[in-house]
Amino acid sequence: MKKCYIAMIPARLGSQRIPKKNIRYLNGKPLIMYPIDNCINCGCFESIWINTESRELGKALESDKVLFHERPVELASNTATNRDFTYQFLKVHICDYVIMVNPTSPLLRMETLKAFVEFVDNNDFDTVLSVVSEKTECFYIGEPINFEKKEKINSQFLTPVDKVAWAVTAWKRDRFIEMQENGTNPIFGGKIGLFSIPKDESCDLDTQEDWNIAEGMLVAREKRGSTEAKYMELK
Amino acid sequence: MKKCYIAMIPARLGSQRIPKKNIRYLNGKPLIMYPIDNCINCGCFESIWINTESRELGKALESDKVLFHERPVELASNTATNRDFTYQFLKVHICDYVIMVNPTSPLLRMETLKAFVEFVDNNDFDTVLSVVSEKTECFYIGEPINFEKKEKINSQFLTPVDKVAWAVTAWKRDRFIEMQENGTNPIFGGKIGLFSIPKDESCDLDTQEDWNIAEGMLVAREKRGSTEAKYMELK
Repeated sequence: MKKCYIAMIPARLGSQRIPKKNIRYLNGKPLIMYPIDNCINCGCFESIWINTESRELGKALESDKVLFHERPVELASNTATNRDFTYQFLKVHICDYVIMVNPTSPLLRMETLKAFVEFVDNNDFDTVLSVVSEKTECFYIGEPINFEKKEKINSQFLTPVDKVAWAVTAWKRDRFIEMQENGTNPIFGGKIGLFSIPKDESCDLDTQEDWNIAEGMLVAREKRGSTEAKYMELK
Repeated sequence: MKKCYIAMIPARLGSQRIPKKNIRYLNGKPLIMYPIDNCINCGCFESIWINTESRELGKALESDKVLFHERPVELASNTATNRDFTYQFLKVHICDYVIMVNPTSPLLRMETLKAFVEFVDNNDFDTVLSVVSEKTECFYIGEPINFEKKEKINSQFLTPVDKVAWAVTAWKRDRFIEMQENGTNPIFGGKIGLFSIPKDESCDLDTQEDWNIAEGMLVAREKRGSTEAKYMELK
């Protein structure tokens, strides 16, 4: 890597719809361990930080590879913003870029995280967002975005709509701080790069149903290739 | 129902990337049986048709509730279009609307199919598409679609981007035939209605990986609520 990257894993203990989701087991491993393992294994980071208001959680996760950044309690409420806690974090830690790796995206593969950081390293963006590129017809307020009604073209030839996944995000430290201090929004700040991740590495974890889906997808991933196809008989 | 609806289930035997996927077992049931069971159970249809070029498949699926529409072989190639085989089907079968129910969407619930047909019945659209409404920031060719860079708003307040799911589609028969005969594209014809389906009822089945994901989601659905949450210990 040509620049200095640090990983920030945001992890409140008080989640709402799925209680304590960060420490809950998902397919045999606590949710918070997915981003931690990915950050350790990808080998891209000068340091890896858990950004949490919970001293209990911070202390439990701390190791020789993982550091604890204690988030001020006022930045851990349900109304506190990503923008504010990331700014507080960046004021304390020196780096070229902070890479936010989200525990709510346990399906993200280590190889994808690594490719993301390499993409940041090989370019000069202020913000890099992970997106899922949807090659299917999309509408916005009833109007076509990426197709014309007069023809139906094969979806593989459509220009994709890129949906922000929030699985992993990069911000250039100096630019972020400067924008926040100017009162402008740094979350979508400056020159933005989009990095496509595979569709099966993106998920939501808002509801119990989302949780079950993510678990199902992890189970399916392990099974990959090992299932023998069975067919209906036609007489 | 105020109008007459017939269901058309398109089912080629010669699928490409996943061979014979329509008759392959997915979580204990042949793929083609998912739309068939949904169409029978929702009770909305005057008749239910399998539209296939395979006499073998058509004969195997035929019953007192399911009819076989033999698709001309020239409309079953990889280059044949939905537009052409639907036109050929509609010329033969009288109805107010045809409802195309796709075997590649086995996650669609019967209740959703029923609600879709009721939506068609309570409105006067020429075409109704099933969509997944994505309440997340989206870009098209690098430009924001449904948000502004200057602020990050909570995603629940974003105007969604509606992604066509192709799980279930309705066309008004007369209008479809008229447009096709005029040489205009009836697939997105006339007055279009969009019907949102839950995100976990939409899927792709293009690759073996998609297949595993769909199977994982069906397994997860069965488990729903039955899993006891387990947590990491914090000392």
